[in-house]
Order: sequence, then structure tokens, then C-alpha cells
Amino acid sequence: MGLITETELNAAAGVLAQRDRFSSIDLTALLGAGTTVGPHVFIDAMAVVGEQCTIESGAHLARGTVLENNVFVGAHVAFATAPGSMQHPVVVKQGAWIGANASIVAAGIVIGAKAIVRPGSVVTRSVPPGAIVEGNPANIIGYVDATQGPPGSAQAAVVQNRASVETTPVKGVAVHHFPVIPDLRGNLSVGEFDRQIPFKPLRYFLVFGVPSRELRGEHAHRQCHQFLICLRGSCAVVADDGVHRVEVALDSPDRGLYLPPMTWGIQYKYSADAMLLVFASDYYDRDDYIRDYAEFTALVEAKA
Amino acid sequence: MGLITETELNAAAGVLAQRDRFSSIDLTALLGAGTTVGPHVFIDAMAVVGEQCTIESGAHLARGTVLENNVFVGAHVAFATAPGSMQHPVVVKQGAWIGANASIVAAGIVIGAKAIVRPGSVVTRSVPPGAIVEGNPANIIGYVDATQGPPGSAQAAVVQNRASVETTPVKGVAVHHFPVIPDLRGNLSVGEFDRQIPFKPLRYFLVFGVPSRELRGEHAHRQCHQFLICLRGSCAVVADDGVHRVEVALDSPDRGLYLPPMTWGIQYKYSADAMLLVFASDYYDRDDYIRDYAEFTALVEAKA
Amino acid sequence: MGLITETELNAAAGVLAQRDRFSSIDLTALLGAGTTVGPHVFIDAMAVVGEQCTIESGAHLARGTVLENNVFVGAHVAFATAPGSMQHPVVVKQGAWIGANASIVAAGIVIGAKAIVRPGSVVTRSVPPGAIVEGNPANIIGYVDATQGPPGSAQAAVVQNRASVETTPVKGVAVHHFPVIPDLRGNLSVGEFDRQIPFKPLRYFLVFGVPSRELRGEHAHRQCHQFLICLRGSCAVVADDGVHRVEVALDSPDRGLYLPPMTWGIQYKYSADAMLLVFASDYYDRDDYIRDYAEFTALVEAKA
Amino acid sequence: MGLITETELNAAAGVLAQRDRFSSIDLTALLGAGTTVGPHVFIDAMAVVGEQCTIESGAHLARGTVLENNVFVGAHVAFATAPGSMQHPVVVKQGAWIGANASIVAAGIVIGAKAIVRPGSVVTRSVPPGAIVEGNPANIIGYVDATQGPPGSAQAAVVQNRASVETTPVKGVAVHHFPVIPDLRGNLSVGEFDRQIPFKPLRYFLVFGVPSRELRGEHAHRQCHQFLICLRGSCAVVADDGVHRVEVALDSPDRGLYLPPMTWGIQYKYSADAMLLVFASDYYDRDDYIRDYAEFTALVEAKA
Amino acid sequence: MGLITETELNAAAGVLAQRDRFSSIDLTALLGAGTTVGPHVFIDAMAVVGEQCTIESGAHLARGTVLENNVFVGAHVAFATAPGSMQHPVVVKQGAWIGANASIVAAGIVIGAKAIVRPGSVVTRSVPPGAIVEGNPANIIGYVDATQGPPGSAQAAVVQNRASVETTPVKGVAVHHFPVIPDLRGNLSVGEFDRQIPFKPLRYFLVFGVPSRELRGEHAHRQCHQFLICLRGSCAVVADDGVHRVEVALDSPDRGLYLPPMTWGIQYKYSADAMLLVFASDYYDRDDYIRDYAEFTALVEAKA
Amino acid sequence: MGLITETELNAAAGVLAQRDRFSSIDLTALLGAGTTVGPHVFIDAMAVVGEQCTIESGAHLARGTVLENNVFVGAHVAFATAPGSMQHPVVVKQGAWIGANASIVAAGIVIGAKAIVRPGSVVTRSVPPGAIVEGNPANIIGYVDATQGPPGSAQAAVVQNRASVETTPVKGVAVHHFPVIPDLRGNLSVGEFDRQIPFKPLRYFLVFGVPSRELRGEHAHRQCHQFLICLRGSCAVVADDGVHRVEVALDSPDRGLYLPPMTWGIQYKYSADAMLLVFASDYYDRDDYIRDYAEFTALVEAKA
Repeated sequence: MGLITETELNAAAGVLAQRDRFSSIDLTALLGAGTTVGPHVFIDAMAVVGEQCTIESGAHLARGTVLENNVFVGAHVAFATAPGSMQHPVVVKQGAWIGANASIVAAGIVIGAKAIVRPGSVVTRSVPPGAIVEGNPANIIGYVDATQGPPGSAQAAVVQNRASVETTPVKGVAVHHFPVIPDLRGNLSVGEFDRQIPFKPLRYFLVFGVPSRELRGEHAHRQCHQFLICLRGSCAVVADDGVHRVEVALDSPDRGLYLPPMTWGIQYKYSADAMLLVFASDYYDRDDYIRDYAEFTALVEAKA
Repeated sequence: MGLITETELNAAAGVLAQRDRFSSIDLTALLGAGTTVGPHVFIDAMAVVGEQCTIESGAHLARGTVLENNVFVGAHVAFATAPGSMQHPVVVKQGAWIGANASIVAAGIVIGAKAIVRPGSVVTRSVPPGAIVEGNPANIIGYVDATQGPPGSAQAAVVQNRASVETTPVKGVAVHHFPVIPDLRGNLSVGEFDRQIPFKPLRYFLVFGVPSRELRGEHAHRQCHQFLICLRGSCAVVADDGVHRVEVALDSPDRGLYLPPMTWGIQYKYSADAMLLVFASDYYDRDDYIRDYAEFTALVEAKA
Repeated sequence: MGLITETELNAAAGVLAQRDRFSSIDLTALLGAGTTVGPHVFIDAMAVVGEQCTIESGAHLARGTVLENNVFVGAHVAFATAPGSMQHPVVVKQGAWIGANASIVAAGIVIGAKAIVRPGSVVTRSVPPGAIVEGNPANIIGYVDATQGPPGSAQAAVVQNRASVETTPVKGVAVHHFPVIPDLRGNLSVGEFDRQIPFKPLRYFLVFGVPSRELRGEHAHRQCHQFLICLRGSCAVVADDGVHRVEVALDSPDRGLYLPPMTWGIQYKYSADAMLLVFASDYYDRDDYIRDYAEFTALVEAKA
Repeated sequence: MGLITETELNAAAGVLAQRDRFSSIDLTALLGAGTTVGPHVFIDAMAVVGEQCTIESGAHLARGTVLENNVFVGAHVAFATAPGSMQHPVVVKQGAWIGANASIVAAGIVIGAKAIVRPGSVVTRSVPPGAIVEGNPANIIGYVDATQGPPGSAQAAVVQNRASVETTPVKGVAVHHFPVIPDLRGNLSVGEFDRQIPFKPLRYFLVFGVPSRELRGEHAHRQCHQFLICLRGSCAVVADDGVHRVEVALDSPDRGLYLPPMTWGIQYKYSADAMLLVFASDYYDRDDYIRDYAEFTALVEAKA
Repeated sequence: MGLITETELNAAAGVLAQRDRFSSIDLTALLGAGTTVGPHVFIDAMAVVGEQCTIESGAHLARGTVLENNVFVGAHVAFATAPGSMQHPVVVKQGAWIGANASIVAAGIVIGAKAIVRPGSVVTRSVPPGAIVEGNPANIIGYVDATQGPPGSAQAAVVQNRASVETTPVKGVAVHHFPVIPDLRGNLSVGEFDRQIPFKPLRYFLVFGVPSRELRGEHAHRQCHQFLICLRGSCAVVADDGVHRVEVALDSPDRGLYLPPMTWGIQYKYSADAMLLVFASDYYDRDDYIRDYAEFTALVEAKA
Repeated sequence: MGLITETELNAAAGVLAQRDRFSSIDLTALLGAGTTVGPHVFIDAMAVVGEQCTIESGAHLARGTVLENNVFVGAHVAFATAPGSMQHPVVVKQGAWIGANASIVAAGIVIGAKAIVRPGSVVTRSVPPGAIVEGNPANIIGYVDATQGPPGSAQAAVVQNRASVETTPVKGVAVHHFPVIPDLRGNLSVGEFDRQIPFKPLRYFLVFGVPSRELRGEHAHRQCHQFLICLRGSCAVVADDGVHRVEVALDSPDRGLYLPPMTWGIQYKYSADAMLLVFASDYYDRDDYIRDYAEFTALVEAKA
């Protein structure tokens, strides 16, 4: 990133035209080439702005804020002050888009790559890569570029009478339908391991009581296979193989989602009564987890 | 609307006093006579501002934004950017009032005449004429100048034991009370057409499943009479004869609202379980609808 | 009805075989020809039993009980005592069937023709003709010989996208399906009088808050047409032209039931939240009602 | 079974004392040795009563009713008539007890061995061996001789913070407690196969939507191990090794029940929202099931 | 009570007329003067029946059953057998009325003086004096001779705006109305001890989670004053000074019931969510309780 | 407060460095010593700013706004315009902190001493001293410097089987635990005045129907003792002795909170169904209330 000082910036007035009129940029702040700054902008000390960013009128970048390349910051966006030090500045990863009047209010949070913060949002927690957030406080309402998977059972027109498997655009990820056998004594749903479900589990876990704005998952496994069934209520799972991404609604015990190893998975949009059952092919192993999305995509590329 | 260029505006500095200090107004933007602009304001290219507007400090008008006459724009209000073209700018109709820190975030929406956007609102949809909105996202919470009609049944101190009719300030509009006859086998409510209800219906329709932030109606009929009963849940009806406006709460099957022809009607504040029954004096006729409020008021005046 | 005294009955021992052993029948009780009485039966003073009845072992007929012809009384059935007079005996109409151990506990009630009281029931209210009751206290659970009409919307596999009419085995009675037009702003259901609905109404009425064990209706109209829509919850309508009988489940605002004049109608199985909307072709007229089922069937036969 | 005719029965009057006074027993009915019959009893044609039964005053046995040995029939009990044939008589297995005023109202049902029908019950379905039923209609409320297992989590005074196992009086059957780990993102409950749960599953199944009066299970497995967890709502499991019987309430995802092979299991008392998750050690094998309780106890004895 | 043996009873055949035909009465049973016995009755060993009782056809009195004077036993009523001993016979107190086909199924229970068991009831628990029960199992549905107190708040037409006290027919018992002061921050209800409430409490207790068929109370205090408020849900209180009896519905926190010393009180008809707050003027003192209704009425008379 | 004019402010440019660049401060506004003003700030006529305040970039102070000493105003904060007069300006008390992009939208409201307005909040009502608010509209979410008291019963790991008392850091304030005694007839909770509860009450009151965003209390008593029990639902109580502050959750009838005299108390975070029972040691006495927090702390200090 080729950084320039304010002095150089002022020298480049021809490029920036008149839009930086009345802006106040600290001498210790750095701005990358190709970045445009609107009028009335305030950029505090030690802020670092990458290349090809757009900073609209009246935006306020607190001390030490970091914008990577290709970030858009809308009018009047305000970043939290990181008081006294550079230790916990807000970091905005490349390609993120922050709408007008948004407030990024917590020190140390990260706005993930290509994330979208809709105008007027009050962001109090880190935003995952590719997530779309809105509201006060802001919640995730979707993911950029996620294909919509098969409809949830509640929306599906036809009840499955036999087991079936639907593939998705994401490598290896599949939605399994189990037959529900109703009889006078109650409904019955059966799944067989190593037959309908493509592995033998060594572990199960239950997730429940999740507040609606929480994410779970946000990691991939190197070796472990998982199979998810939402037993009551509903949630959504975003599965990503590093190339494609799909969002699958789980809303009935008659459908399960298979996530093979090397699939980045996120669960969100939990209903208040959601209970998620997960089968895992392995015992818990801390080293099996990949928790950094960049590391994940790098590994995917290395294998390709 | 007599428009002036920025150059003229600058020439008029004596009128505007010092409040436009540090403002950045594009050379292609037009401002009407009598408009005042506060400091730190940013007005982008091809924006059009009418006469007698007030634009407070730090407001941000995106490219192509249109303000009609007598519009108030509070401090730090931000309008969405309409990227790349003039096709879908935000339009603010005359007399609208937009509070401080509000965000008008969707391209192409219209803020209706005399509407009020309360401070801090995030507006994502068009605002009808005279509506008051607030919140993130913003919802309609009332209408300017609407008289409050008779209280809903749930609030009324005395249960009506006989049919009665209450007039309202709006021409011809009346609230009808029907007796509810309770007996051990259930309650019974009866209405007679051409007797209690002032016409014979050729059609009925039911409205239900309305999301709480939705409006319905927003039109007048030239010839058709309507009679509205909220059978369960509750909703509110704004009735307007072009001169007076009344808001009537419908919350019980024992009250109905008569809307004669040439009454502008809006229904909103639907509870989740609301079911509205409407009797109409005529079959559906597309040409009977007046859907533009300005056309409606013009017709009312022409008849007066 | 040719009645015989106990003396004659005893004389007829060859017919009754030994099954009346140990029975105690008051001298003032009357029994019809062809009636059989099991052992241990007690028949109190002034009871009147018709022809071809069966009274099983241990049944107890209180003073003044009246059984018409072809009545079955199961083992240990007990009828309430009508203390002190003949004014309010229980009357069991012809062809009724009362299961073992049932208790008919309220003085003056009538068990209607061909009604069925299931074993063990405790009957505290009159039972309409042809009704089937069970439980403690007993409720109506169905009607004898009623054809099951088209399934309720909740059970129907396919949502109707256009208006249609289904006939039933009962003369003139038809189930009308209305399209429901869903859009983002709520659902809309429309019906047109004199087009989809076969008359113009002069009256509507709403029935709601009906306790689940209540019947409503139980009458026919001479001239008046009716059209029934269950706007929320559910109820069942039994329609009867004097020859055929059908039970129709109403459980959605998108289906209506047309009842022409000279149709005997009953509504029951109300859910707690049921609200029934009825359009009537005439204003209320007391003389238009036929409230006695026998009178109704006589009129039907006279017209045939 | 040594049967005697009524003639012999009358001859045995010294044994039966005077209690059979006024009883009416068909000549084709058979009664076993040691059976006592109270006064006012009616026993219809072709009924078969075993040895050592007690039939109290006023009982009514319909045509063809079968009582095995050691059955108790209380005062005024009435059995349904099986009209016209012997094909579907009611059968009461040995040792069953039927309380006063009970009505056994459906042809062809079976009252299982040692079952208890509480007084006043109206029995409309077969009663399993050892079950206790009551009500109108009658439901199962418990099992004879079942020990009460450890209390459900909802009743337990102390929440388990670590995994533990509680044994029961029934061979091999154990209740497992899992820790529930709450964190900000929701609660987590984990169980490990072959560690906390004593086998690796090849199959899981979910049971849900069970009406409260239903039983499930009622069989044993020869080889298959099972592990039951009630994820929401509650139910009760009766486990029986042929010698001891225990009833265990499952009402929380933090407890599971282990059923080893050769355990007779029944689940009942389902709450409306109950969802039961079962892990099984084997694939489905029809021959692994023992569905007859007598066969099961014979096998248990043979192994002992 | 002058008892007679069966022999004497037979001798009194002229009095009893023919109605005792076919009855079977054990030689050790005792019957009081003036008692009439219907046909097919069975009275087992050591039963004791008082004077002026009526026992209708087919009734079954188990071994040791005790009926006091003036008891009515309807047709086919069955009393539970008290196996093996006289220790826990059913006792029916004087003046009680038991309807046809009722089952008194639990050994050792007591049917209180003047209680009414409605026909077909299955009685599994003792019935308090004067209570009316029905159903399977039987629940209390009211009390004989109880005046109905002021209507519950939910039924009252007019909301009380100021504190007031309503007296009742029962000595000293009064219903206190408290004003509810609504304001924007919530409703407020205030009561002052020694002012509005006629004593200073030394104790409070809360009653909640009461199954709907339970009674509480059923005692009087010698010294202690009580004041009852139903904070949520509803219940009914029967208050009795030994001469008059009143039933008061408590269904709102704005009404309280004062019970002075020497008032017999019963609470019942609890809604599922009922929570009853009771203030007591004294600490718990076992000796302050009068738990026998007869002792209570004797004390009342002694004081009069 | 030593105020300076803008002229003096400009003279003090060395102190303020360059951060006031492009700010627009009315000549009639007053600023205190030590106050720093960021760039792009707009301060309208007759605003009064105290000493040692910080006003960040782009903040907008409407006409007549008053900030006391040590107030922080974040970037782009907007204060409501008080149209036409000085009568109802917004007042911000000393030490308050207002985060970026917050809107203070109602004329005449007061932001209390040391209160915190979180970034992006839309404040429509006065904020009590020390309160923390957030959201649109803003609600209180906590209090500055409040210690967290013992967990509510719902969170406590172990159910108390006997009465106990837990002290808190606040002088005299204690949480009392009561045993809950379950029996077949319902649960019973008992508290004894002058024994478990440290005073005899002269008054009780009930608080219910409190909207979730409401505060109650906000005062101290000079003499009166109080004891609070939340009978259903839940709420939180902040207790403050002028030196320490604790927040106690009340969520079960088995716990009570004792507040001695000279304790400042606030109740908030009411659940929708919360009902709070309060015992007070004295009758209502207007003079016993201290409603001003500053007066309260002064009294506390005077006594120390």
C-alpha cells in the first residue's frame, strides 16, 4: 500500500478536485493512492487509510482507525475513539461498505472483508466477512453472494415421503430429507448412520437457548464431518467451500444438513425456541478447527 | 420555483449571514430563493432545492436529491447516494420536515408533502403525505393534523347496548355501533343493510395477515361506498375529506366505519391478528379509484 | 302403540324367554308389543315403553320415563328420577340407542330420534335428532348418517388459486372456494354478491365466543338463503335436506357454504377462537324459521 | 381350565353361599372352578369365565365375553355386546382387575394380564399387560409394580455440574446426567459415545407429536442397546427386566436413559411438545424385536 | 339410630312394599327405621345404614359402608370394597345425596354432610360438607346454599376509582376494593394496614401452582384475622360463619377479602396461573386452627 | 464557571491546536476554560458550554443548549432545536458522556450527571443521573458503577431449602431467601415479619403492568424501611447508599430485598408480566421522600 501524507494529499488537490474542502486530516494520518476524501471529513491521528477508498462528507475516523483497500465510508459515518493508545483500533477489511450515518461504536471490532453495514446502523460487535448488517444495534440480516438453498420444510409444497438427498452448489454439502411416518401413535423420523448419514458419529451436541442475534459456528474443520438437524424452531446455516456459498434454512426435524470437512459454516437466525442437534464424526480436537476465514481460503486454494 | 446558482448564492451572503460558512455546494446544484443553508453542509451535483427551505449544519444532500419548497432538513441528515445517474433520486415534497441525524437510505423513495421524519430515523421506504415516521427502520406512527375519533371499544367505558351512530369531523364519515347480544351459546352481532348500514353491498372483501408496518388503502373512491369492520385484532383508519382528517381505531366487531364516496382512506397499525371485513356498494372498477392525493384534493376543491 | 301391562307381560313369558328373570316392573308401567326386557331391570311407576324396544340387564327407568318405539337401552343405563310428578320425564324418541352404563341425569331432557348415546356417557342436556354423544359430561361428537363433505382447507392438499364451487349430496348445498390473493402487504379474499355468492344480502351476522360444546342453528328457513364463512378458527356445519345429510368443516376465510331455503342446518365443533360470518338474503323474520325437525321433514315430504 | 355348567354351579351353591342369588346365567356360558358370582349378575350366552374369578353384584357379561383365570369384575361392570357372532368378543387376560361401574365398550379389545381398570372407567381401547387405566375415556396412568426412578431434572433440587450415572433396580438400566454449559452464545450439552454413553450408535430416531394418551415401545430387543434423551417437553419410560420394573421421567436434554438388550421398554405420558431422541446400537432388524411380553419373560427365565 | 336386622326388614315388607324385591342384604348389615330399599340392591356384610335413607335399584354397598341418616343413594351407585377389614369403610354423612351411576371408588373417603354427588360422578377423594361434585374424576363445582358475593372485577361494570368496602351476609366478612392508579409508568394499587385492612399482619403467605381441582383452607381460626388478595389468575373463596355462607370470586389485585376470626373458609376454583397473597394477623399457631366443621358450628352456637 | 467568548477562544488557539478548524460558533455562545472543540462543530446562539468539556468533530449544539462542566459530546451528536426561545433548552449535567451520532431530540430534557448516552442513541426522554442508555428510542440498560448483586433465583445453581440472608456492598441492604414448600396441594412460601423480615409493615403496595422501558422509584426514604418481592416475572433494583451501588435481580417469590432508610432505590428492567410486592414500615408520608439525588448525597455526607 503506497501511503501518502496530508502534505502530499494537499499537493494532489487536482486529483481530489474540490471535495476535500474544509476537511481536517491529522498530520500523522496516512492515506493510500486513489483514495478520495469528501468535504468536512475528520481523520484523527495515526489513522491509516488504504488505496482506492471513498470517504464521504462529514465522516469521522477516530484515532488509529484502519481502513484497508477499496473501503467505502458513507456520509457522517462515525468511528469509535480508541482512547489513549493504538492497541484496539477499529479495523475495516478490504472491500467493506459502510452506509451513511452508521456508527461503529465499539473499540477493537473488525468489519470483515466485503461486509455491508447498511446506513444508520449502530455496530457494536465485529461483522463477519461478507455479512450484511442493519439496525440499532445492528444484526446480521444476510450474506453477500450466498445462493439460497432448497426451501425450508415449512415452505415446501410437497411433503417428502421417502428419504432423498439434494445437492447444493457448495462442494459436498447436501440437504438430506428424511421421511416422516405418521401413525396414530405419533410421528416417527428415522436416520441411519453410514447409510443415509455419510459417517458414524463419535459425538453429538445440542445447541439451544441462543439469542436471536447470535452467530454460532464461523469455522471450518480439517477432518471432522458434521450433520445438523434443527429439532424445533428454526435457524439458517451458511455453508461455504471457499468458492461458493449457500444459505440453507433448517426448520423441521425431517431435514438434515451434511457439512464435509473443509467447509466453512455459520449458523444464525435462530428462532427463540430453536434446538439444533449436531452429529460430529470425531471427538473434540482443538487442532481440527480453522477459525480464520483467510487461512481457510488459502488452504482451499492450496489444495486446488 | 425561482432557482439560483451557487454563485448567486454566494452573492447573497448578506441574506444568509454567516451560517453557510464552510459549506460545500456543487456548482451544478440549484437553490431556491429564501432558502438558508447552515455551515458544514454538503450539496452534491445536480441537487435541486426549492424556496424557503432550511438546511441545517452538516446535512448531506446526495447527487440529484430534490427538495421542494418549504422543506426542513435537520442537522447531519444524510440522503442516500443515487449512484451514477439522475434516474432515482430521493424527492422530498413541499412542507416536509426531516429531523436531525435522520438517514434517508433508499434511492428513489419519496417523502410526502408535510410528512414528518423524526430525528434519528432510518427511512427505507417512501413516506405518505402527512405521515409521521420514526425508528430504525422507520415506521408510521401517526398522521399530521388527524383528529382522534371516538375511542376504540376496548377503551370505551360503557358497552353499547343498542345500535348508534357517531359522526366525525370528516364529511359523511361515521362510526356505527352495533349491539352485541351475549347468550350462553355465544355472542351474536347483527347488521342490516339499507337500515343500519347505509347501502346494499355488491361485494365484500377480507384483509388479513398484514405486516404491522404496512399501510393499506391510500386511495379514495369516486362512487363506491365502503363499510369497514375489524373482526379481530385491531387497526386504525385515517379518513380525510380533503379538509378534515380523523383517525378511528377499529378493535371490535361491534363497531363499523362508514366511508362515503370521495373520502381518502388509509388503514394502518394492524395488529398481527387483525382481520378487516369491508362491504362495498359496487363491484370492482379500476376507474373508480383515485390514487393520487393531490388529484383527490384538487377534485374536492373543484366540487366545493 | 299397543301397550301391555306387566300382567300381560308375565303372561308372555314364552316370548321373552327367561331374560326378564328378577326384573321389577311397576304395575302402572306400560310396555309395547315386541319389546324385550333383560333380567334385573327396574321400571318405575308410570313409565311408558314403546314397541320393539330392547332393555338390557340392570337398566333403571325412573318414574314416568318415556321410550318411543325401537329404542335400545343398554345394561345398567340409569334415567334420572323426575321427583313428584309426570311433568318433566325424560323422553327418548324413536330409534335412539343408549349404550351400557350411560346416565341420563337431567329431568325433562329429550334424546332425539335415532340419536346415539355412547356407553358410559353422562347426559345432562337434550340430544338432537341423529346426534352422537359421549363423555362425562356428554358432548356431541358427530351425526348419524352424515356424509363427510370436502376436507377443510387445513387438510386440503392444494390451495385453490381460483374460485370454484363443489356440490354436496344435499340438495342445493354447495361449498364455494374463493381465491386468496397474498401480497407483501397482507392477504386479500374477495366475494361478489349475485356473482359468486348466489344472492344479494340484506343482513349479515357474526357468531363468536361459542363454548365448544354448544350447538347453534338447529333450524331451517322457509325463504331465506344463507351463506356461511368461518373467518377464524373452525366449526362444522351439518346440512340436511330431509333426505341426505352432509357435514362440512369450515376452517378458513377462503371457503363459504351456501345453504338454500328448506335446508336444516346445525353448527357445532366450534373452536375457542371461531368467528362465523353469515350473510342472509332477508331481514329477520320470526315466521321464516322452522325449529322442529319433524315439521321440517313433513314439509319436505309434502313438497316431494 | 376345568369348566362347569350353570347346572353344576347351582349344585355348588354351598360353596358360593347365597351371593349368586337372583343371578341370570345363560345355559351356554361356562364358569371355572373356584369362581364366585355375586347377586344380580347377568352372564350372556357363550361367555367363558376361568377359575378363581370374582364377579361382583350386578355385573353384565355380554355374549361371548372371555375372562381368563383370577380376574376380578367389580359391581355393575358392563361389557360391550359383540353383536351376532363370537368373532370379536372382549378378552380379559389372567389376573386383571376391573373396578366397579367400569364400561368395557369396544368389541374385540383385550384387557392385558394384571392390568387394572379403575372404577368408573370407560374403556375404548385395549389395555396393555400391567397397565393401570382410568377416566372417560380411559387412559393409562401408570404401571403395576413399577419402582419410581430418579426424579426428572425439573424436580431435582441440584443442577448437575458434571456428568454422572445413576443406576436403577432394573438390570443394566441407568440414568445418565450431562452437564449443561451455558455461555453467552447459548447453552451447550455434549455427550460422547463409547465414553459417557456405553455404545456406538448405528442409528438414531426421533419421536414427536405423540398424543398424550399414546404408548410407544412395548417391546424388548434381543441384541440392540438404546439410549433415550427427551430434548423438549417430557415423557416417562417404564423399563422392565422381567423381574424388576422402574419408571423414569425424562424431561430435560441433560439426562439420558440407557436400556441394555433384553429390557422391556414402554414410553408414555408424553407432554404435547415432547420430542424424544433415541440412539440405537444396531440397524433396524425385525427379528431383534420381542413384542410379546409372555415370550419376553419366558426368555428371561430361560437365561436365568 | 334404631337399627333393624334383615329379618326385621323382611318382616316390614308391608312398609317397603314390593320395591325390595330381589335385593340381597347380608345378615350382618344393619338398616335404620324408615329406610327404603329398591330392587336388585346389594348390601354387603357389616354395612350400616341409618334412618330415613333411600337406596334405589341396583345400588351396591360394599362391606362396611356406613350411611348416616337421610342419605339418598341413586340407582346403580357402587361403593368401593374395603378389602379385609372394617378399618377404612366409606362413610356418607347425614343428608348427603348421591346420584345414579356414581362410583365411590376410594376406600376410607368421607362424603360430607349435605354434600351432593351428581349422577355419573367417579369420586376418588373425600367430599367436604355441603360441596357439590361432578365429573370423572369428580371435582367440586359449587357449594350448597352459598350466597353469591359481589361479582369479580372482571365482571363488574364499573371500575372502582376509590377504596370501598362491601359487606356480605356472612358476619364480619367484607370485600375491600382498592383503587388502581394507572399512570404512564405502570399501575399502582395500595392498601394500608390498620386503615383499609383491619389489622396489622405478622405474617404473609403466597399460594400458587395449585392444580385446579384442589381445595385449600377448610378451617377456621379462633383468633387470627386473614386478608386475601388474588394477585393474578383467579380463585373463589367460600366464607361461612356457621349460619350464612357466601362465595366470593377473587380475580384481580384490586380487591381483597377480609376473614375475621371464627370464619370457616375454603378456597377453590384456582385458575392455572392463580397466585393468592394472604395476610395473617398472627404467627402460625397450631392451636388456633379449627379443622372440624362440626366443632366449628358447635363453637359458634355456644358463643351465640 | 469562567466563560469565554468566541473571540477569546480564537485567541486561545495555541491551546486548542488546530482541531477547531472550520467550526462555526455563534458570537453569543459561551465556552468554559479548558474546553476543546473539534473541527466542523456548530454551536448556535446562546448555547452555554462549561469547563473542561470535549466537543468532537461535527457536533451540532442547538440554540440555548447547556452543557455543564466535564461533559463529553461525540462526533456528529445533534441536539434538538428549542424553537424561538430559551425556555426549554436541553441541559446536560456535569460529567455526562454522549457518544458519536447520538440524537438528543426532545426540547427541555435533561441528561443527568455522569449519565452515559451510547453512540447512535436517539434520546427522547430525560436520562437519570448515572444511567446508561442506548437504542432508538433510547432505553436505560444499566447504571454506572453498580455492583452486581447475588444472581436471581432462576440463575442460582442451588435451590434454597431454608431461609437465609445475603448481605450486599450497600449499607444495610440485604437479599433474603425463603424456602418454598411444595406439597400436593400447591407450593407455599412463608415470610414472618420481625423475624425473617426486619420490620413490621404498616403498608403494602403492588406494582404491575410496568412497560419495560419504565423506571420506578428514584427516591430515598428518610425513615421508612422497605421490603420488595417480585411475585411473578422479574425486575431489577438498583440500591445506592451514596457511596456504593448494587443492582439486584428479583425474579421469584422466594427472594426478597430489604432496603433500609436512607437508601436511594430505582426499579427497572420489568418483564411484561412482572408484579412487585413492597412492604413498607410506615404510612405514606410525603415528607419522608428525598427525590433529588444531589440532596440525598449531601445528607449522606452530612451524617458521615
